[in-house]
Amino acid sequence: MSEQKLMSLIASIGELDAAAMAAAEQHVNSLTKPPGSLGRLEGIAIQAAGITGELAADVSKRAVIVMAGDHGVCEEGVSAFPAEVTPQMVMNFLAGGAAVNVLARGAGADVFCVDMGVNADLEHAELITCKTRKGTANMAREAAMSRDDATAALLGGFDLAARLAADGYRMFATGDMGIGNTTASAALCAVLGGMTADEAVGLGTGINEERRLHKVEVVKRALSCNRPDAADPIDTLAKVGGLEIAGLAGVILGAAANRSIVVVDGFISSAAALVAVSLAPQAAAYMIGSHLSQEQGHAMLLRKLGLSPMIQLDMRLGEGTGAVLAFHFVDAAVAVMREMATFESAGVSRE
Amino acid sequence: MSEQKLMSLIASIGELDAAAMAAAEQHVNSLTKPPGSLGRLEGIAIQAAGITGELAADVSKRAVIVMAGDHGVCEEGVSAFPAEVTPQMVMNFLAGGAAVNVLARGAGADVFCVDMGVNADLEHAELITCKTRKGTANMAREAAMSRDDATAALLGGFDLAARLAADGYRMFATGDMGIGNTTASAALCAVLGGMTADEAVGLGTGINEERRLHKVEVVKRALSCNRPDAADPIDTLAKVGGLEIAGLAGVILGAAANRSIVVVDGFISSAAALVAVSLAPQAAAYMIGSHLSQEQGHAMLLRKLGLSPMIQLDMRLGEGTGAVLAFHFVDAAVAVMREMATFESAGVSRE
Repeated sequence: MSEQKLMSLIASIGELDAAAMAAAEQHVNSLTKPPGSLGRLEGIAIQAAGITGELAADVSKRAVIVMAGDHGVCEEGVSAFPAEVTPQMVMNFLAGGAAVNVLARGAGADVFCVDMGVNADLEHAELITCKTRKGTANMAREAAMSRDDATAALLGGFDLAARLAADGYRMFATGDMGIGNTTASAALCAVLGGMTADEAVGLGTGINEERRLHKVEVVKRALSCNRPDAADPIDTLAKVGGLEIAGLAGVILGAAANRSIVVVDGFISSAAALVAVSLAPQAAAYMIGSHLSQEQGHAMLLRKLGLSPMIQLDMRLGEGTGAVLAFHFVDAAVAVMREMATFESAGVSRE
Repeated sequence: MSEQKLMSLIASIGELDAAAMAAAEQHVNSLTKPPGSLGRLEGIAIQAAGITGELAADVSKRAVIVMAGDHGVCEEGVSAFPAEVTPQMVMNFLAGGAAVNVLARGAGADVFCVDMGVNADLEHAELITCKTRKGTANMAREAAMSRDDATAALLGGFDLAARLAADGYRMFATGDMGIGNTTASAALCAVLGGMTADEAVGLGTGINEERRLHKVEVVKRALSCNRPDAADPIDTLAKVGGLEIAGLAGVILGAAANRSIVVVDGFISSAAALVAVSLAPQAAAYMIGSHLSQEQGHAMLLRKLGLSPMIQLDMRLGEGTGAVLAFHFVDAAVAVMREMATFESAGVSRE
């Protein structure tokens, strides 16, 4: 039932507006600069026109959606931090003290913090709650969650993006919080991205190489015990994913269905994007890559998604921190379209 | 005489404030994030503390200094655009219609446009004029300028940065405009950076490979006819440099002498930085790299400067466009220091 609803929502994701893109390309080539010299800013400007249908859309209302969830696989000792940090950081987001809050303020973005499945009872006036369970089960022993849980989380994310879009938000950044979630993301990369566990597993928030090898083993165990079906993204998400990852995949699909720009953060958000495009390949056109995380699997994952990172700051924090920084570049691309002089208007000679 | 003055000004460039950097490093490690997870933003925060002597300096007053000059070497057919574009673009900067104006507005930066040696009589209330000659001579046949011209341009840039610093500006971006200036920059890279002409010469604003090979020949001719002394940066700058490049090298030195952050733009600005650090190695500590230009020699040049690009947008426009975008990242680094919660204040557990 709810899976049917999800599929019909996904089917509503349309193609980019080709006429708007052609007009944008023509405009960008009339501006006072050598053709192509603004590089990927030009591509973003054209993509933004295709997404919004406008030459230079007003994207001043923007949101970073930070979704949090806990991971049963933490039992296996895969993270440098204790699981209690997930709820503690949620409260930090809500108090405005985390890195993403600081960077969001700098980029004029509102932070929406969502409890998708934190293993604690959290209360805060500004916390959005969308949880079916308090964290996933230990995927090294059993399915992380049921298929219904995964579907509900996807729908929850989709619905949030849709509501915010209805409220005027036209640009989203995806952000994650969840101790253990690089392990789940690596497992998703292995199944849906065709990566080996060793390629997909990195140092997370700061384990050493010995523990990374243990983490590789844990991912291999999760795959062999659950046998996720790569042809069935919801099955894979349920068996080896995470609640916040499912929610973020839903956000990406919801943004695309509502013709909004969605800027994808680092490794976990990119794993969510992999789930989203596995379900709906046409959603890829609405995504913009942001930074290249230091997490080792991220470069390969981005290549599989067809996204190029614009930012190389060796960050590995998640929360949407890289995506929020990339908002500045989308702003730059749109402002170029709106404000730059043309060769004609400025009386500048062409080559 | 004026060279003596320059040398005494350069000698005033001090080391970074080690105590401020140690305090900044300690603070950054107390913030609610895994150690090092903000990557190079942490390094920038510490560097900014060392430059300014403050934990989180107010860098809201910032300037992009766009210096323009013409190049006699254009006679050799090295550029895709006619030389008349230099003065036309200067007027475009002054009218606020160029890419750098748009991106500077987005980053809250004031644009200062300087005629360092444009081959035209330009008048505008906001144009800063600092020219000893209308463009360089054709370096493929003779020295681009005299040693006195080069020294005067260096002093002019230094003085402008010093005046702006006195006016409260604490962060600068370097920007260039000058048809033909990738050719001069390539020659400087060959002499002061130990690069081959073939490594240093790229496609500029958009020539093809055949013309690039011609440009390589022109650079080789300039080197063999002028025999610049690599051990004497002013000699090199005079023989195969440019007036705007000399001015920008002066800006970098002036920023460093005034304990200001200087964000270095693309290939031409990096060539200016190479001149600056050849004159004053201690100036390097005040520089922050911005983007990796598509101009082929830029990656190698940045490595020689010890700068890592933070932005990869395949831009190749100059004007300071890449550096101005990087202001957002300096802002992010400083804001993190000022606004983020600590583990203690937020009650978050450590690893």
